Amino acid sequence: MTTVSSEAAQQDVQAYMQSVGKAARAASRQLARASTKMRNDALLAIAEQLGNSRESLAEANRLDMAAGRDSGLDAALLDRLELTPSRIDAMITGLREVAALPDPIGEISDMSYRPSGIQVGKMRVPLGVIGIIYESRPNVTVEAASLCLKSGNATILRGGSEALHSNLAIAECISAALASSGLDAAAVQIVNTADRAAVGELITMPDYVDVIVPRGGKGLIERISRDSKVPVIKHLDGNCHVYVDADADLTKALAITFNSKTHRYGTCNTAESLLVDAAIAEAFLPQIGERLKAAGVEIRGCDQTRRYLPDASAAAEADWFEEYLAPIIAVKVISGLDEAIEHINTYSSHHTESIVTENYTRARRFLTEVDSSSVMVNASTRFADGFEYGLGAEIGISTDKLHARGPVGLQGLTSQKYIVFGDGHIRG
Amino acid sequence: MTTVSSEAAQQDVQAYMQSVGKAARAASRQLARASTKMRNDALLAIAEQLGNSRESLAEANRLDMAAGRDSGLDAALLDRLELTPSRIDAMITGLREVAALPDPIGEISDMSYRPSGIQVGKMRVPLGVIGIIYESRPNVTVEAASLCLKSGNATILRGGSEALHSNLAIAECISAALASSGLDAAAVQIVNTADRAAVGELITMPDYVDVIVPRGGKGLIERISRDSKVPVIKHLDGNCHVYVDADADLTKALAITFNSKTHRYGTCNTAESLLVDAAIAEAFLPQIGERLKAAGVEIRGCDQTRRYLPDASAAAEADWFEEYLAPIIAVKVISGLDEAIEHINTYSSHHTESIVTENYTRARRFLTEVDSSSVMVNASTRFADGFEYGLGAEIGISTDKLHARGPVGLQGLTSQKYIVFGDGHIRG
Repeated sequence: MTTVSSEAAQQDVQAYMQSVGKAARAASRQLARASTKMRNDALLAIAEQLGNSRESLAEANRLDMAAGRDSGLDAALLDRLELTPSRIDAMITGLREVAALPDPIGEISDMSYRPSGIQVGKMRVPLGVIGIIYESRPNVTVEAASLCLKSGNATILRGGSEALHSNLAIAECISAALASSGLDAAAVQIVNTADRAAVGELITMPDYVDVIVPRGGKGLIERISRDSKVPVIKHLDGNCHVYVDADADLTKALAITFNSKTHRYGTCNTAESLLVDAAIAEAFLPQIGERLKAAGVEIRGCDQTRRYLPDASAAAEADWFEEYLAPIIAVKVISGLDEAIEHINTYSSHHTESIVTENYTRARRFLTEVDSSSVMVNASTRFADGFEYGLGAEIGISTDKLHARGPVGLQGLTSQKYIVFGDGHIRG
Repeated sequence: MTTVSSEAAQQDVQAYMQSVGKAARAASRQLARASTKMRNDALLAIAEQLGNSRESLAEANRLDMAAGRDSGLDAALLDRLELTPSRIDAMITGLREVAALPDPIGEISDMSYRPSGIQVGKMRVPLGVIGIIYESRPNVTVEAASLCLKSGNATILRGGSEALHSNLAIAECISAALASSGLDAAAVQIVNTADRAAVGELITMPDYVDVIVPRGGKGLIERISRDSKVPVIKHLDGNCHVYVDADADLTKALAITFNSKTHRYGTCNTAESLLVDAAIAEAFLPQIGERLKAAGVEIRGCDQTRRYLPDASAAAEADWFEEYLAPIIAVKVISGLDEAIEHINTYSSHHTESIVTENYTRARRFLTEVDSSSVMVNASTRFADGFEYGLGAEIGISTDKLHARGPVGLQGLTSQKYIVFGDGHIRG
């Protein structure tokens, strides 16, 4: 891998990225025929290499941390950049867990005979080459690489430039492991330039890259989605809703609302809005108001909400769209299920919504009509997660409707092709 | 529906398309909760309306045909534009067949309990609003509308401007049928302006349109894919290959090659390239050469091919990429399976490829390693078709890897959301 100086002309970055893409495409062909064992062995070998390289990883990370401090990165970014011993442990454990998951590749399903005599079905195959664009979190390098490798995809990883030393140290571990496992070194490549033009190239090489997975803030993801000439599997942040129906069980409503909001504030499956049927508002709102207040959660309510919760501030229109990622919740008293569905389909980010109700018909309507990637009855929105859903791993949560929707596990990194068995069959 | 004059300013087209999009989004909400019976009744009502409107359909079509002749449309385009009585019959039959298909919507699958106690699975749901952009073929209007309606999607149809009168006559039938079935008239809308700016608007309204399906020539599809801000389900044309392996049964190889090439010349699943293992070239090429010659098929061969078929012209590099859609075939003698896979993955349009062999291991490798939407063993490439695969209907063939790949039936017009059943479950 060649280093490109920061003065590199645009053409140099383009030529470099083209060579990276070309090598990835070739590696993806080899990966498509690599056995389950070869791919799992490579994952375990990366784990071993990381374990043996704690010194050099720490040293590379110290360079990034020092440069980050010098350039005035804030505390949260520095925290994400740091490669602590326990984070290295977590990367190693993660690799072993991914190696132990069932292989999604090669699964043949739905084979059936047609009247013509041919037998038709589907075979699960890798997507090919996946480009991952993410911020300065070195542990994402290993996590993303492992899921792509497991699913038989070649990967081009473009992490934040602040983490370049750490990522290159990780890249050395990965290269050594791939070599020892007999896999093409280009099966996992880390973009070795801090030049931002590299991202522009990566997302406009449809001949070499099959899918882009951007991970990071909303701004990054929106920019990449707008400019990409390659399909993007997005996981955006979430404005998730809990709707407490007139027939809710109050105990469940309290537990689910409180857990959905307060279990963690910074996650995309945290509830940001609470809708309450007017018929149950008087019974429910004072109780949940008290619990949320005790937990330090600020309530921004509609006029009716503020009648029951005089301490609440007034919600503005913008609050219904807001993903706070903070101890704040928007609360609205509504006239019933129709308004709840209408409100959610209008303001939600289509991530996760939950109805609390004992009413069969309304539960069924909510499930059918709410247009979000996860729709729940009597459960906390915090369950919207690849591990909780049993996917074994998660590369993110997709709020798009095509291909993968909701938590995206290994299957989301695959495609299916049709396969046909004949015995000399021709079409009449 | 308002008519926009041809002098309409860009803003007028934009405002008009926004209103179309907004109405489609609202209609899609109603369709998402419409019962199976309502949607099927609407399909049957459209069939009835078309049957009762043969006069007005013919009259509208005569206007389009006359204008087409005046503006010098070529014979092939005029043929596609014409709405003959038998084409109207075919549209009516098609609607009844789609109504009789199983409903894809609402299917719940893979519900399983997780260690936390929640029960998680998937529900099949419509995509929402589908924009269809196609050329001047009025029968496509009915076909596309019926598949979208069946799968619970609202549709915005933008046909070629040469067919506008015919399409508006069809639109009247559809509107009357929707009204009589209690569905929102905006469930199917036909863009009522010949202004080409309408296409530009349609593909850049992600708030109102979930997917674009372009149907037509490669140029149209490439342009739309490039400019669209909405995901595109593409069906491009095909450069399909037949590979005759060293262990091919000669009788099967002859039948499959001949059928794949000559059954129909103008279809995307027609074979355009033939690869022959050198070990079987001497036995196979003279025989297939004779049959193809008798059928009037021109052969463009590599040097080795021309040793066995002296009449063949010399293939140029461009021939390996070519989709002839004509009685021409490119023929290459190759060294074996590795070269076959390499050649196909390099030159193919990733549509459909077939190996003819009795060899188990090579059949298996071909299936696994050829990166196309349909991969076959001992069967004609002409089988790559939604009806032949048992999908019941086909909106096109996707050569993309995300979402729908290969023949796209009703399922390709749907998405799946996760559903979660709890009983007050919260995350610990």
